[in-house]
Amino acid sequence: MRRFNHSEFLRHNRRVNHHTAASPSPDNSPLLAAYHGRPVGPAVWFMRQAGRSLPEYRAARAGTEMLEACLTPELAAEITLQPVRRHGVDAAIFFSDIVVPLALAGVDVHIEPGLGPVIAEPVRDATAARALAARAPGDAARITEAVRLTVAELGATPLIGFAGAPFTLAAYLVEGRPSRDHLAARTMMHADPEAWDALLGWVAEISGAFLRAQVMAGASAVQLFDSWAGSLGRADYAAHVQRYSARTLDAVADLGVPMVHFGTGTSDLLDLLRDAIPAGSPGTGPAVVGVDHRIGLDEANARLGGATPLQGNIDPAFLAAPWPVLEAHVRDVVARGTAAPGHVVNLGHGVPPDTDPGVLTRVVELVHGG
Amino acid sequence: MRRFNHSEFLRHNRRVNHHTAASPSPDNSPLLAAYHGRPVGPAVWFMRQAGRSLPEYRAARAGTEMLEACLTPELAAEITLQPVRRHGVDAAIFFSDIVVPLALAGVDVHIEPGLGPVIAEPVRDATAARALAARAPGDAARITEAVRLTVAELGATPLIGFAGAPFTLAAYLVEGRPSRDHLAARTMMHADPEAWDALLGWVAEISGAFLRAQVMAGASAVQLFDSWAGSLGRADYAAHVQRYSARTLDAVADLGVPMVHFGTGTSDLLDLLRDAIPAGSPGTGPAVVGVDHRIGLDEANARLGGATPLQGNIDPAFLAAPWPVLEAHVRDVVARGTAAPGHVVNLGHGVPPDTDPGVLTRVVELVHGG
Repeated sequence: MRRFNHSEFLRHNRRVNHHTAASPSPDNSPLLAAYHGRPVGPAVWFMRQAGRSLPEYRAARAGTEMLEACLTPELAAEITLQPVRRHGVDAAIFFSDIVVPLALAGVDVHIEPGLGPVIAEPVRDATAARALAARAPGDAARITEAVRLTVAELGATPLIGFAGAPFTLAAYLVEGRPSRDHLAARTMMHADPEAWDALLGWVAEISGAFLRAQVMAGASAVQLFDSWAGSLGRADYAAHVQRYSARTLDAVADLGVPMVHFGTGTSDLLDLLRDAIPAGSPGTGPAVVGVDHRIGLDEANARLGGATPLQGNIDPAFLAAPWPVLEAHVRDVVARGTAAPGHVVNLGHGVPPDTDPGVLTRVVELVHGG
Repeated sequence: MRRFNHSEFLRHNRRVNHHTAASPSPDNSPLLAAYHGRPVGPAVWFMRQAGRSLPEYRAARAGTEMLEACLTPELAAEITLQPVRRHGVDAAIFFSDIVVPLALAGVDVHIEPGLGPVIAEPVRDATAARALAARAPGDAARITEAVRLTVAELGATPLIGFAGAPFTLAAYLVEGRPSRDHLAARTMMHADPEAWDALLGWVAEISGAFLRAQVMAGASAVQLFDSWAGSLGRADYAAHVQRYSARTLDAVADLGVPMVHFGTGTSDLLDLLRDAIPAGSPGTGPAVVGVDHRIGLDEANARLGGATPLQGNIDPAFLAAPWPVLEAHVRDVVARGTAAPGHVVNLGHGVPPDTDPGVLTRVVELVHGG
């Protein structure tokens, strides 16, 4: 509402900047250039870069529960900015959690340290799914405020908006907690199409609203995380999941921002992830696929037909290896990424909590300098 | 030592039977016929069929720890036989755990209910790996006895021997407990090739000895479980894992039994799993690939070139669905399986503990009668 009010701006993927004309803008940043397939130089950031690997994060979070931190604008902004200051990465990723839209909608959810999201009343049938689906998305004012504070500090560094994909969120909602195989959710997917549609349709609505709030407040791109998509085969993903992820991203498709779609264990699903990203309308931003550590970027690019910018895919297992081993791996990732029309260096998964942050800084320097 | 003492028998995949000539033999069973690619009729069994879904299992196990149960011959035999009696499945799978060979070798390991294997002293470096590798495989007498007792009861129903693959076992040994991404193990794989080779070479030795003991005591086939192989991409699997799984199976390659190789999340690795199975020598048994729920058997067969018998792949998520939904899925699995030169119906993963055992019996009846 504040930023995008003019179709010409959208068509050219420009943002109406509320800074003065002289303020730096992310529009020409290496990140956005790579996402648009017109790279101007190396770009690198790390999934979960704002998190437990940083001592300043642990200090800022001390005594504050995860969801409370996500919903405290000053704190969320500070945590989002920390890795940018420390590592000099080419993007900030909004500090949040995939269950924040659930909390905003009034779902009783908390994040248990060492375990993950726990839902007080798991959604096990169509009645429960319909009851949930009657809830409005909730007030995103605290999200908007956190993004505004962050963007004001970031200057020319772009902020990437963050949301969880419907399947992954549904896996938590149905199981009630993290699970290995998401069996209960996948049973509902096959056994109760009506409940499934009500549930995933609603999650798409609230996650989409969450993403839109971030972009309207100044985020320059979005990334949709479908952490558990890899538990699905192609047929199930295409028949029961893809359209809900597409609906989530549809919420920002008119805003002209790049849309990154990522999941783990998705070597066999990459084209389906890409095709879930809205495309083809004037003003729609580019589709980018995030790739995990299981497949080389050259092979991923070949499977995608060579037309999709990629993000990834340093194997987090190398972060604890001696530097020469890690360095060779990073160089290999960068070299394979040149096959794609654009490449943003990232990990193949989130930063492990026990990672030495100095190693991450060194990776950024290598990517920028190498 | 007791069964296979004559190369002619091996070459024809016959077993020297210590029953009287009139005793029924598994040699012409539907299971072995399908594994040999010469199916004579439907064959079905379930991974983890001997386990918590059965009330008689829970009764038999009451008060006995998992590893103690595995190492008590009469109890292991009884548990192995339970699902054969109840469901009328076409094979027994030896009741054991992938860490049993570790326990036999004197490693301090226990299985924590609700969590999984916990290793008292995780193997984090080459010194620890070498120390472990100095351990002998340990006495398999209790395994031999359990298999003998089982086979004597089974009659014409074949017993499948069971072992864990080196990567999955190494993941537990390095991490010390179950983990989502097996990061510490994968770091060692890349950072310390000497430790990795010592560790996986040793695990291949003890798992191979474990398998050989089972076949020598009467098992008619073997299955190697690489539960965590799906956390690896093709390049890592081929470079750092495949040869150790091959070494494990080499321990039984001269015994003429079918060798089934299974992992989850392996849609992209199926040919590499197959190629880890020793082949081509006279007397070597056939290679069979187990397929998880993520890929249709027709597609798996196509990826494997159409020459490999398959096992799988009912999605366990359907077991809790209404019968008509499950029935349609089972029929679809059976229909897709006809593409392969041989097909043994199974799940795509283990039986979930809360499965209604009556449903499993009904699936067996459907496969046998449909």
